[in-house]
Amino acid sequence: MKANKERIETHISDLSAFTATPNQGVTRLTYSKEDVQARKYIKAKMNEYGLDVREDGLGNIFGKLQGTKKDAPSVLVGSHFDSVPHGGAYDGPSGVVAGLEVAALFQEKNLTPTYPLEIIAMIEEEGARFGGGLMGSRGITGTTDAEELNHTKDKDGVSVAEAMRDIGLDPTLSKQRDPQTIKAFLEMHIEQGPVLEEKDIAIGVVEGIVGLSQLEVTIQGQAGHAGTTPMDRRSDALVTAANIIAKLPAIAAEEGEGTVITVGRHEVFPNGANVIPEKVIFSVDIRAGKEEHMQSAIQKTKDFITSFEGQGMQISMEQSLYMQPKTLNQHIHSLLQNACNQLDISYLPMNSGAGHDAMVFADVTDVGLIFVPSKDGISHAPEEWTDTKDLANGADVLFQTAMKLTETT
Amino acid sequence: MKANKERIETHISDLSAFTATPNQGVTRLTYSKEDVQARKYIKAKMNEYGLDVREDGLGNIFGKLQGTKKDAPSVLVGSHFDSVPHGGAYDGPSGVVAGLEVAALFQEKNLTPTYPLEIIAMIEEEGARFGGGLMGSRGITGTTDAEELNHTKDKDGVSVAEAMRDIGLDPTLSKQRDPQTIKAFLEMHIEQGPVLEEKDIAIGVVEGIVGLSQLEVTIQGQAGHAGTTPMDRRSDALVTAANIIAKLPAIAAEEGEGTVITVGRHEVFPNGANVIPEKVIFSVDIRAGKEEHMQSAIQKTKDFITSFEGQGMQISMEQSLYMQPKTLNQHIHSLLQNACNQLDISYLPMNSGAGHDAMVFADVTDVGLIFVPSKDGISHAPEEWTDTKDLANGADVLFQTAMKLTETT
Repeated sequence: MKANKERIETHISDLSAFTATPNQGVTRLTYSKEDVQARKYIKAKMNEYGLDVREDGLGNIFGKLQGTKKDAPSVLVGSHFDSVPHGGAYDGPSGVVAGLEVAALFQEKNLTPTYPLEIIAMIEEEGARFGGGLMGSRGITGTTDAEELNHTKDKDGVSVAEAMRDIGLDPTLSKQRDPQTIKAFLEMHIEQGPVLEEKDIAIGVVEGIVGLSQLEVTIQGQAGHAGTTPMDRRSDALVTAANIIAKLPAIAAEEGEGTVITVGRHEVFPNGANVIPEKVIFSVDIRAGKEEHMQSAIQKTKDFITSFEGQGMQISMEQSLYMQPKTLNQHIHSLLQNACNQLDISYLPMNSGAGHDAMVFADVTDVGLIFVPSKDGISHAPEEWTDTKDLANGADVLFQTAMKLTETT
Repeated sequence: MKANKERIETHISDLSAFTATPNQGVTRLTYSKEDVQARKYIKAKMNEYGLDVREDGLGNIFGKLQGTKKDAPSVLVGSHFDSVPHGGAYDGPSGVVAGLEVAALFQEKNLTPTYPLEIIAMIEEEGARFGGGLMGSRGITGTTDAEELNHTKDKDGVSVAEAMRDIGLDPTLSKQRDPQTIKAFLEMHIEQGPVLEEKDIAIGVVEGIVGLSQLEVTIQGQAGHAGTTPMDRRSDALVTAANIIAKLPAIAAEEGEGTVITVGRHEVFPNGANVIPEKVIFSVDIRAGKEEHMQSAIQKTKDFITSFEGQGMQISMEQSLYMQPKTLNQHIHSLLQNACNQLDISYLPMNSGAGHDAMVFADVTDVGLIFVPSKDGISHAPEEWTDTKDLANGADVLFQTAMKLTETT
C-alpha cells in the first residue's frame, strides 16, 4: 500500500460537506455555491501537491505536473465533482480524490515524469443542472459544440455562460482541448452496482462501457373534472403514462443481457388532486452492453409507447442522447491488470453499466477505467458508501499505471 | 326570459380576465392578485345592485338585500370564485354571476323581499391553494375549526391568516355563521359532465351529491443508479406507483354505478433522469353516489395499494377527506322543478358527481342546486364553456325560486 488512507478519507469527508442538502445526501449542482466550495478545495489541494492549476471555459479544473519531455502530451487522471440531487459522497469525488492522491504520491516520492501528469476534476457529468450529462468531458473532447454549450440553459432559464460568470468563471476561455495534448485518460469510479462487493473483489478493470440513450416522452390527453367525467370518457394522460411505465421493466428483461430501462424524471400537469391529468412528461433511460441490444431495446420501447397513440391521446418522443457501447483500450487494460497483480490486489474484468467521462474520452484518446466496490450496490443516494481501503487500492493501481504511462522511473 | 344575457356575458368575460395564466385558462388562487381583482369587481357589482356588502374572516363576500321581516334568516344565492390552475371561466363564477343577476333582477323590478336575500361569493372551493377544498363554505357552516383554518398553510408555508392580511383582509373577523341566520342556500353550477348537453336539456335539478374521499399515498422504495442496478434488484417507487395507477380505473369500473377514481397529483423524488425513483407521493380521489359504493371503492383501492407493500417497498396512506353522499332538500327540489315548468325550461333530475359548496351547506340548512350544460362535458380546463342562454335560464330559475323562498310578492 502506497496511498495514504487518512488523506483519502479526509478528502472524501471534506468534499461531502459541500452540499445544498445537509443530512439528506450530497446535492452539488454545477456552478452552485457548493460547486464553488468544492472547486476552491480541489484547487488548494492541487496547489499543495505542486501542480500548476487552471480552469477551462467550462470550469473543468486541471492540475499539471510538468514532464521532462518537451511539448509532450499529458496523462490525465480524474473524474467529476458534481452530484445528482440527494446523491452520495463517492460518485464523482472518489475519482477526483484518487487523482489528488496520485499527485500527492508523485510529490512525496519526489518523482518527475517524462510525460506530464494532469489531475482533472470535471463539471456536470450527471446532467442534474443542464440535462444530458457528461458536459465537462464532452467540452474537453470537442464532441459537442462549444458555442452551443454556452447557451445551454437550466430549468430556470439560466445559461451555462451566465451561471459561470455568476461564480467568477470565464466562459470565453477555450473548452475543447487538442487531442494531441492528451496521451491517455485514467478514471477511478465506484462500481454503483453489487458485483464487486458480492464477489469480494477489490478492483473491477473495465473492458467496455454500456451504450446509453435517453428519450423524453410527452403524453397529451385531456384535462377534466375528477368527479363528473365518467371513467369511459376520460383521456387521462397519467393513466396512459402509468400503463407505459409499468411495462418498461418487462421490455428490459425480455431484451436481457443486462439491458436496463429507467424512468427517473416524471412531471404531471396540471397536478391538482381533483383534475384529470392533461399531460405527463417523462424521461426514459435505456442502457445495454451491445449495440444490437441498444437498438432493439430503443425500438421496442418506442413502438410500445407509440401504441398508446390515439383515442384522445397524443404522444411525442425525442431522443435527447445516444452513446454507443464502447470497448476500452487493450494496452491500458493490461497495464491496470499488471498493476493489480504486482500490488497483489484482486481484480475482475467487467463492463460498466453507467456512462462515465471515460467513455467520452475514449473517442479521442486511450482510456483506462477501474471500479471500486459500492456497499449494497447503492449509488445516487445518500447511502452510497465505499470503504477507504478500497479507495486506497484504487489510487495505488492508478498511481502504478500513471507511472508507466508518464514513463516515470 | 327575465335575466339579462348581455349582463351575464359581460360578468363572465370580465371575471375570466382575472387570471394568472392569460391565454392558458383561468388560474385564480385564493388571496392571489387575481382574487383581489375579482373580489373588487364582485363587490362593486353588489353595490351597484343595491346590496350591503361585507367580507367575513375568510374573505367570503356577502351582498345583502334587507327583507321586511325583522331578524329573519337570509336566503343565500351564490357559489365560489376561485379556480383550479389552468381551469375555465365557469366553474365557480357562473354561480356567482347567477347570484348577481338575481340581485340585479330584484333591483330592476324594485322588489322587496320578506326574508333577506344574500348573494354570496366564496373562496377556496377547489382547494388549489390550501388543499382539501370547500374551505369557504366549511368556514361559514362551522364544519371545520375556525382557529385551525387560520393556521392552514399553502405549499410555500404561507398561512391563511398571513395570506389574508397580505391582501388587506381581516382574519380575526368571525368565520362561522349562526345557522339560524340562514333560511336556505341556492347554487347554480355548470354540470362539468356531458349529460345535459347530450340530452339537450337546459337544467339539471340536483337530487343528491356524490360522496368524496381523498387519499394521499406515499410509495417509498430505494434510489439507485439507473445504469448499474440490474432490473431484478430494483425497488423502483415509480414502477410500483405506475402499476397501481394503471389499475385504478378497473377498480372504479368494477364498482360501477358511476363510481370514479382519479389520481390527479403525483410527485416523483428525486426526479432525476438517471436516478431510480426513491419515492412517489400521489393523491387518489374517489367518488360514488351511494354510501355502500363509496365504502367498497375505498376499501378495494386501499387493499390493492397495500398489496404492493413488501419486497423493498414501504407504503403509507392517509385519508385526507371523506364526505358522505348527500340527498338535497325535497321542498326546494320541488320549487326548482316548478320554476322550470312555469318558465317552460326543460329539466332533468340528476345526481352531482362533484362536491360543491351546496353539499357543505346541506349539513346546516335547506339547499337547492341546479346544473347548466357544459360543452363536451369539459371542466377544470381552459376549454370549459357554457352558452350564455343556458346561464340565463339558470338565473331565471334561481330568481323565481329565490322569490318564493324570500316570500317576495
